[in-house]
Amino acid sequence: MIKRINHIAIVVEDLDSALAFWRDAMGLPVAKTEENPGENVDIAFLPVGESEIELLKPTDTESGIGKYLAKKGQGMHHMCIEVEDIDATMQRLAAHGVQMINDVPRVREEGTRYAFVHPKSAGGVLVELYELPK
Amino acid sequence: MIKRINHIAIVVEDLDSALAFWRDAMGLPVAKTEENPGENVDIAFLPVGESEIELLKPTDTESGIGKYLAKKGQGMHHMCIEVEDIDATMQRLAAHGVQMINDVPRVREEGTRYAFVHPKSAGGVLVELYELPK
Repeated sequence: MIKRINHIAIVVEDLDSALAFWRDAMGLPVAKTEENPGENVDIAFLPVGESEIELLKPTDTESGIGKYLAKKGQGMHHMCIEVEDIDATMQRLAAHGVQMINDVPRVREEGTRYAFVHPKSAGGVLVELYELPK
Repeated sequence: MIKRINHIAIVVEDLDSALAFWRDAMGLPVAKTEENPGENVDIAFLPVGESEIELLKPTDTESGIGKYLAKKGQGMHHMCIEVEDIDATMQRLAAHGVQMINDVPRVREEGTRYAFVHPKSAGGVLVELYELPK
């Protein structure tokens, strides 16, 4: 039912400085970089084994990630857990009284279905659920 | 050189509440629980794919983890990256001016060699390096 850690998202002030550590010093490859004006972030994707590190750089101060950076500073922002069946997982979570941020899965352009668990229900961790397109 | 995310460590106030989410609601298995009086934490290890989630519950308020919980609250504490050769990795990091918390690797009882990168050099993330015994 639970497949893997799909990614760990890290909020950074500056992509170049973050890449100086993760890419240049640690030696991780950069699979892709992307500007996401819809969510006001620039993102770099760095695969690590079966998972990815996603570096998120907010492009404004009013978006969710921008406010997070201003309030909490740089660091790990959320953990994305990939599941086989997000509907079944969400039913199970609901049966255990877990509070979601998204009550129904949202869908990305390429077909990934996702939803966030409220950190209140996950011991302070912002947990994202992913179901990749089959 | 870099193999995988070995584990994500999460600081929690209470293991039972954390397990109610990760084990009971999410359905992750608990591979092991351990009392670690040396580091003043109780730990639960939950495998997820090739990685693990480690739930850390401080048993006092004066240890590093206890102070972290008091100051920052529950949440993701560090990310452990498993490497093939920790000496080679640390030489590479040093060549890039990365500051370490441990200048030489420490060794756990079972032979794992580990060292922490200073969050200042890793964009606010506490990164642990692991080299497992061969």
